[in-house]
Amino acid sequence: MRGERFSKLCRPAILFGATLAGVLGTAGGVRAQALEDLQTPDTPLVLKAQGSFFVGGEKAEQTKVELGDLGPGGHITLNQMYVRYMVPQNGAGNVPVVMVHGATLTGKSWETTPDGRMGWDEYFVRKGHPVYVPDQVGRGRSGFNQAIFNNVRAGSAPPASQPVWLRFSDEGVWPNFRFGAKPGLPFPDSQFPVAAVDELSKQGVPDVSFGGLPTPNPNFKALSDLAGQLNGAVLMGHSQSGSFPLEAALLDVAATRGLVLVEPGRCPAYTPEQIATLVKVPILVVFGDHRDNPTGLPTLPTWQARFEACQALLARLRSAGGQAEMLNPPDRGIRGNSHMIMQDRNHLQIADLILQWIGEHARRPRAGAK
Amino acid sequence: MRGERFSKLCRPAILFGATLAGVLGTAGGVRAQALEDLQTPDTPLVLKAQGSFFVGGEKAEQTKVELGDLGPGGHITLNQMYVRYMVPQNGAGNVPVVMVHGATLTGKSWETTPDGRMGWDEYFVRKGHPVYVPDQVGRGRSGFNQAIFNNVRAGSAPPASQPVWLRFSDEGVWPNFRFGAKPGLPFPDSQFPVAAVDELSKQGVPDVSFGGLPTPNPNFKALSDLAGQLNGAVLMGHSQSGSFPLEAALLDVAATRGLVLVEPGRCPAYTPEQIATLVKVPILVVFGDHRDNPTGLPTLPTWQARFEACQALLARLRSAGGQAEMLNPPDRGIRGNSHMIMQDRNHLQIADLILQWIGEHARRPRAGAK
Repeated sequence: MRGERFSKLCRPAILFGATLAGVLGTAGGVRAQALEDLQTPDTPLVLKAQGSFFVGGEKAEQTKVELGDLGPGGHITLNQMYVRYMVPQNGAGNVPVVMVHGATLTGKSWETTPDGRMGWDEYFVRKGHPVYVPDQVGRGRSGFNQAIFNNVRAGSAPPASQPVWLRFSDEGVWPNFRFGAKPGLPFPDSQFPVAAVDELSKQGVPDVSFGGLPTPNPNFKALSDLAGQLNGAVLMGHSQSGSFPLEAALLDVAATRGLVLVEPGRCPAYTPEQIATLVKVPILVVFGDHRDNPTGLPTLPTWQARFEACQALLARLRSAGGQAEMLNPPDRGIRGNSHMIMQDRNHLQIADLILQWIGEHARRPRAGAK
Repeated sequence: MRGERFSKLCRPAILFGATLAGVLGTAGGVRAQALEDLQTPDTPLVLKAQGSFFVGGEKAEQTKVELGDLGPGGHITLNQMYVRYMVPQNGAGNVPVVMVHGATLTGKSWETTPDGRMGWDEYFVRKGHPVYVPDQVGRGRSGFNQAIFNNVRAGSAPPASQPVWLRFSDEGVWPNFRFGAKPGLPFPDSQFPVAAVDELSKQGVPDVSFGGLPTPNPNFKALSDLAGQLNGAVLMGHSQSGSFPLEAALLDVAATRGLVLVEPGRCPAYTPEQIATLVKVPILVVFGDHRDNPTGLPTLPTWQARFEACQALLARLRSAGGQAEMLNPPDRGIRGNSHMIMQDRNHLQIADLILQWIGEHARRPRAGAK
C-alpha cells in the first residue's frame, strides 16, 4: 500500500498535536482529517460479491409510548444482527471468516485503521477469504430495544430500570487498551498509531450490553446461525466478544471451522461437558504486549490475568485432545502490540500469523456443504 | 444479476407467509433467511479503494456517571459521522455521490435490498461513481450522546429531560411508506418487494434525532464538510434527510455539484437570500407513486402535500434562474413506486434516471480540485 492520493509527510506531526490537545481536554473541534489520511492500495480489490444482510431477529409488540409516541402501537423486530460482507472473486472454497468487534465499538473496528491503512476485513479478502463483519446485537446498525427508555421518559417505569450505556473515555483507553501507561505517553515500542488516537475515539459508540440485552446474549445464537448459514466459518471475536466464538461453538460446534479469540476479555471456566464439545474445533487465542500495565479500571482484571485464564483454558482443551494454541507475539520477538491489535502499525504481520494458522488448522467444510 | 448461489424458486411464497405472520402479530422468530436470498452479480466489482472514515466530531468532557460508571470521568468524541465508501477502479474524474438515509434507518438503506438485490451504493459504483454512505450523526456506527440517559438512570436528571427514541411499527410502515393502504395488502402495482418486508423491519433502529441532537443538526455541517473534503460531490438525501443536501449547500454551495432529494420529508420555505444561494447548484427531487395514501400518522402531512411543497420550491428556484427539476415516475408511465424507492423492484430503472440527470447536470469540479 502507498498513500496514492492523500499522503502528506507532515501529517503525523499535526495529528500528534491534535491528539495531545484532545487528551489534555483542550476545547474545540477535532480536526476533520480522516478522509485525507485514507491510503489507496496499489492493486484493485476484485469482489465476486459484497453487501449486507441480517441474521436472526424476533417480532415484538410495543405500545405507542414505547415506539416514540408518533403513531399507534405495533410490532417491530428486535435482536437482529447486521452483517456486512465481501467475497473475493478468487476465493471459492476458502473458509469464510466472521470478525466480531468489542465493547463500545462496532464493525468499524475491522475496517480502515484510525490512520487510514487497510483494515483486516479487506486484507483477509485479498488473501482469498470471504469476510463477514457484524455489528453486535444492540449496537450500531443492529439497533437496540428502545422501549424501556421511552417508558422511563413517560414516567411509567422507574429510572433505575433503565440499562446503563457504557463509553470508554479517551484518557481511560490509553492504559486499558495498552497504548501507554498514561494518556499521551505511549510505550516506546507501542505498535498502536497513537498519532491517530482521536480517530479511534470517533469509533466509540454507547454500549447497552451491560443489562440491556436478553439472557442468554443473542449474539451467541446469531453468530452460531451465521456460521451455519455459511456452511461453516471461522469465528473471530475481540475483547468483549473474544469469548463469543466459544459460546457460538457450544450451540453448534459442527458449524464452526475454527475459533480465533483476539485479546478476549474472558476465557470462561467451562464444564467438562463443554470442554468435550470445544475440543472438536481448532482454537487460537491472540494477545498483545504490555499486559501487566494497570488498566485504570480497578474492578476489572489486568490483561495478563485474562491471558493466564486463557492459557489455563487452552491447557484443558489440549489435555482433552483439542487443537488449542496461544499466539503470543512477544514469544516471536514481536513487541509493543496493543489491545487494538487489528489497528496496530504491524497489523498485517499479525494477520499473516492468523491466516497461516487458519490455513493449517481450519476444519474442512461439512459433507454436503456448498 | 442472477441468483447464482442461493436462489430458491419457492422463496417468495415462504417469505410472504412469514410477512403476514409478522404483520398479524404471530409469536415466534423471524425466519433467518436473508443470507440465502443474497444475489451474486454476473461480473465482479473492481474497486480502486474501499473502507470507512469519520467526518467531524467534537471532544466533550463527561462525568463518571455519564460514561456508564465503570471508570473515572473524561473526554469522548461526539457528533462524528461514520462514512463507508467504495471507489470504482475506472471512475477517475467522475463525480462522487453521497447517499444519506432516512428516519429510524441507517446507511444500510442503500446497501443490499431486503430481497437480496444489489443496492444503489454498488450500482452507482458500477456506473463509475465513487460512493460515500454515512450513518447520520446520532445513528448506527456514528453513535450518539448517552450522557442524559445515564444521568436520568442515576436520578440526577428528570426522566422527561431524556429525548424520545422513535421507531416505526411494521404495521405503520405499510401506509406511511406506501406499500399498501393496509398492512399485508399491497397496492396491485406496488414496486416494493413486499414479500421481504420483514427484512426491511430489521433495518429499523431507534432514532434520537427528535430532541437528542444539538441545534443546528450536526448532519448539515458534516455533509457540507464531506462534500468539501471530496472537492465537490452530489449530495443525495432520503425522507428525513431529504432536505439535508439543501442545508449543506447553504453552508458551502461551492462544495456541492448537485443535490438529489429522494422523497424528502420537507422542502422548506427558504428566504430569498437562501434561494439566491441554492440556484447555484442543480437540484433534482424524486418522488414515488400513491402519494395521496393516508400515512396513518395524523400529525404528519401526506406525501402528496410534501410533493406539492417541493414543486413550489422548485418553481421558486427556476424563477430565480436555477436548474431545478422534479422526477415524477408516473409522468413517465412508471407506476407503483414506494417511499423506499431505492429498494423497489424497479430500483435500477429509477437509478438510471438519476444517473442520467447527474451526467447531464452535475457541475464541474472546482478549479484546482484534485
